[in-house]
Amino acid sequence: MRPVTVGPKDVRDAAERILRRVRRTPVLELGQILGASVVAKVELLQHTGSFKPRGAFNKLLSSDVPSVGVIAASGGNFGLAVAYAARETGVPAEIFIPSSSPQTKVDRVRAHGATVTIVEGYFAEAYEALGARAADTGALVMHPFDQPEVIAGQGTLGIEIEEQVPDVDTVLMGVGGGGPLAGIAVWCGDRVRVVGVEPESCASMTAALAAGEPVMVPVSGLAADSLGAARVGDLTFPIVRDRVERMVLVTEDQIRDAQRALWEEVRLIVEPGGAAAFAALRSGGYPVSSGERVCVVLSGGNCDPATITGPE
Amino acid sequence: MRPVTVGPKDVRDAAERILRRVRRTPVLELGQILGASVVAKVELLQHTGSFKPRGAFNKLLSSDVPSVGVIAASGGNFGLAVAYAARETGVPAEIFIPSSSPQTKVDRVRAHGATVTIVEGYFAEAYEALGARAADTGALVMHPFDQPEVIAGQGTLGIEIEEQVPDVDTVLMGVGGGGPLAGIAVWCGDRVRVVGVEPESCASMTAALAAGEPVMVPVSGLAADSLGAARVGDLTFPIVRDRVERMVLVTEDQIRDAQRALWEEVRLIVEPGGAAAFAALRSGGYPVSSGERVCVVLSGGNCDPATITGPE
Repeated sequence: MRPVTVGPKDVRDAAERILRRVRRTPVLELGQILGASVVAKVELLQHTGSFKPRGAFNKLLSSDVPSVGVIAASGGNFGLAVAYAARETGVPAEIFIPSSSPQTKVDRVRAHGATVTIVEGYFAEAYEALGARAADTGALVMHPFDQPEVIAGQGTLGIEIEEQVPDVDTVLMGVGGGGPLAGIAVWCGDRVRVVGVEPESCASMTAALAAGEPVMVPVSGLAADSLGAARVGDLTFPIVRDRVERMVLVTEDQIRDAQRALWEEVRLIVEPGGAAAFAALRSGGYPVSSGERVCVVLSGGNCDPATITGPE
Repeated sequence: MRPVTVGPKDVRDAAERILRRVRRTPVLELGQILGASVVAKVELLQHTGSFKPRGAFNKLLSSDVPSVGVIAASGGNFGLAVAYAARETGVPAEIFIPSSSPQTKVDRVRAHGATVTIVEGYFAEAYEALGARAADTGALVMHPFDQPEVIAGQGTLGIEIEEQVPDVDTVLMGVGGGGPLAGIAVWCGDRVRVVGVEPESCASMTAALAAGEPVMVPVSGLAADSLGAARVGDLTFPIVRDRVERMVLVTEDQIRDAQRALWEEVRLIVEPGGAAAFAALRSGGYPVSSGERVCVVLSGGNCDPATITGPE
């Protein structure tokens, strides 16, 4: 048996540690959708536009950070969060960004004062390049999902959701490497139905569950910049396997429709990966029960609004 | 002495009347800005993307609506709200829209099932055309700001702000005809500093206060589609005169800067009129005291995001 590496107390401790560093993002009632009573956790209003600072701050504030600082590889949102958290806590940050990331994210990481290196490819390639560099400099490696402190930090979403939506039955969360899904499941997977959502074109968790272990999968498509982890984590996988109710797959069209609906009907700009959970609900990919109280996490807003509001 | 026409009880009654019809929109901590502790009331997440359904529902639900339905003239947001509220309560709506309104708002009013007539000019011209039509059909006229039920409905913003931000010192609110400013001031003007904000190019309340009565002013510029009332109300004016601390003017550039900052730093798309209050804070036009607890109302989000995120 693999030892349990993250528990509810770690999530609670993380919440105390990062309390004054992150926003307690609001929830918004979306009314009845397909018979469910739906509420959105509007996490895209978090600092840097995604949930990622929760894990970044928790890792930073629970580590002995060397003077050379921290180093991370990221499709964008985690890099942005590490850059932000590093500056806020006064340490240097070096970020390796895969070339698949949109330029707007790259620019914003630089704007937060981090040193940026672009690596050809996706997350896996950037992470490989980072390994060599970290060995060289001795910088503290920040992993976007597969460190206990990061999982516990993202899990603070679960604490807030339970406090803000006391009658919640189900939480729908998008999945890249599985950090927040695992974190939420650690916190409340025994009380709340926790469901992960992946694009068909970035289905690393679905593939891992089928294989019984993390496996490499090809990743592509609309949401690859935020959900394009080609392999889920060795820490996140067993947590998800044991504590998550199920995974749901969504198509590119369902993600686009969800993004458009969130703009047209709610006036929120949500990035593709951030809209995956809502897409699973809206498309029926996650089939709700009548009266089910569902919280969808809108987990990021870092995209060009013109990709949502422009002509079809 | 002009009799007081709207009191706190009217606002409380409005809140009960519209309870299940409108969203209790969230507040979001924006942190320290120029020494103030700032929170945003994210009212652009209201149904139809602005605060206007509050007044529209209160008027509709406290009136005997004739079978021919309701009629309204509006720069867009109120028309959208009337169309939405009419459909939700099962009555026909006819909306006169000034030609200064953006096409996106016109399309959305039609999408809510209302009959639309475009009138050349701004709000004043549309309202004049509506008068003749209403006399003809007997439809219930919905005024965007100068009816007691509308003022009371918009005032429910004040109730929520006091509940969500119990330590609030100051509320900053954009002003067109003065409906929500008056409504908030009716509710809490004796306990909270209520400040109105107008674009220099739509300064009808500032002009009215200088003249001692509502006067016609020319209106133009970025925010004219939502704040372009050429003359404030006979009901709103005395309330604002007696219960509002002061008015602040903002420039077009300050509004644009506020819109950009709200997108770049918070990931919210806020229309020009909806960003006026934040512009007054951010520019120093409203000079805060150290430690002052300020709530800025982000009152609308109905604009093309490209006008904010595009090149300068």
